[in-house]
Amino acid sequence: MRSDTKKKGVLYLVPTVLAPDTSGHIPPVVKLAISECQHFIVESLKLSRRHIKKLVPAKVIDNCTFMELNEHTDSVDYSDYLEPATNGHNICLLSDAGSPAIADPGAVIVRLAHRQGIRVVPLSGPSSILLALMASGFDGQQFHFHGYLSRDQSKRKNQLRAMEQQANKKGVTQIFMETPYRNRALLEDLLRVLNPHTQVALAVDLTSHRELVKCHSVGHWKKLTDLDLHKKPCIFMIGV
Amino acid sequence: MRSDTKKKGVLYLVPTVLAPDTSGHIPPVVKLAISECQHFIVESLKLSRRHIKKLVPAKVIDNCTFMELNEHTDSVDYSDYLEPATNGHNICLLSDAGSPAIADPGAVIVRLAHRQGIRVVPLSGPSSILLALMASGFDGQQFHFHGYLSRDQSKRKNQLRAMEQQANKKGVTQIFMETPYRNRALLEDLLRVLNPHTQVALAVDLTSHRELVKCHSVGHWKKLTDLDLHKKPCIFMIGV
Repeated sequence: MRSDTKKKGVLYLVPTVLAPDTSGHIPPVVKLAISECQHFIVESLKLSRRHIKKLVPAKVIDNCTFMELNEHTDSVDYSDYLEPATNGHNICLLSDAGSPAIADPGAVIVRLAHRQGIRVVPLSGPSSILLALMASGFDGQQFHFHGYLSRDQSKRKNQLRAMEQQANKKGVTQIFMETPYRNRALLEDLLRVLNPHTQVALAVDLTSHRELVKCHSVGHWKKLTDLDLHKKPCIFMIGV
Repeated sequence: MRSDTKKKGVLYLVPTVLAPDTSGHIPPVVKLAISECQHFIVESLKLSRRHIKKLVPAKVIDNCTFMELNEHTDSVDYSDYLEPATNGHNICLLSDAGSPAIADPGAVIVRLAHRQGIRVVPLSGPSSILLALMASGFDGQQFHFHGYLSRDQSKRKNQLRAMEQQANKKGVTQIFMETPYRNRALLEDLLRVLNPHTQVALAVDLTSHRELVKCHSVGHWKKLTDLDLHKKPCIFMIGV
């Protein structure tokens, strides 16, 4: 009886910076949640500890518990992860960059929280997808985020052609990404496959001092041969 | 010559609060941009002035210029709007709630800025779409935002069925919205049309003290007869 009536903690979804030294993009609600929380579910221990220490320098990290959630923890039974909340303590869920559960780990924990009747509270903050879309100038009334495209080149070319159709004929802005060291290869495919008049926007190094957001026709992008995307976080968009 | 070599101003894309008294969701970069800016492009004068005054109380609003961008200004020649930036002054672009140019006015100005070689700088902050998706627990690796569905009921039902397919068969989370006073009607359509096992999430009054984020099967939603969505901002989602 007692455990049923006990007030449960909250699961905060906590965005983190996209680039070093950009904590100006983190709102007060995030600092507050981190300050008041002792339990963290994180994508990687090292980055999260550093991030928390930077945002809330007074935080005593050694008093906190950390549980990891990433591609190496697939076989873990995550149901234990929410035990602190069941016992009345708040939990912060963080990914390594940007907003958790969006193109990043986290959704599995959020689903569990809903199932266990734990309140889920999303906090505002950086999201490279949203920032890229806002800054592209493309239609933001309808958009489709595809995540990573296929690694098979012929499938990927078909995906690019299908996205071009959706953008040009239906006005649905298409958003996608690539592992940073493959950015150049994706851009080259894109420039080979798409119509020269199709509009493409790239958003690179968002929020950092090297941030670059450009929108050009495919024909124009082909002329920009000195563009350096290598190992830089980049969001690709096709739109009107 | 002189005007060509003069340093241009920047167009800041500035998110605003989703609910009254939630400035804790606004990051320092937004306050800084508003503090340092004298030129504003806004969805509505009254709300924006109030918002700016609340965020930066020391701001002398009467020294600022405001240009309106909304459904009533369609015939206006927006190219003048960016003149301050051409003359070296920064401009802030704000919508009434959330992130500009996403399910809100703004994209037309961003496109103009790109064409005129004015740097576009997106700032982090509240976006009901992103917050809803994070908190839904649905797959955030692929998602499609549809904006408003058709007002024609039979078309809308077809859209709902097509979205259900995309969610259940392809794993693409479907996100959509409705004018708040029609929320209940949309929910009723949705519950009539979709399979009882299909998962639906609603995010209502995000960031406010009345915030509610729930994810249930259609069958379960049908039993929640006391749900009050009337005139409340709500994001609808179908997902897995």
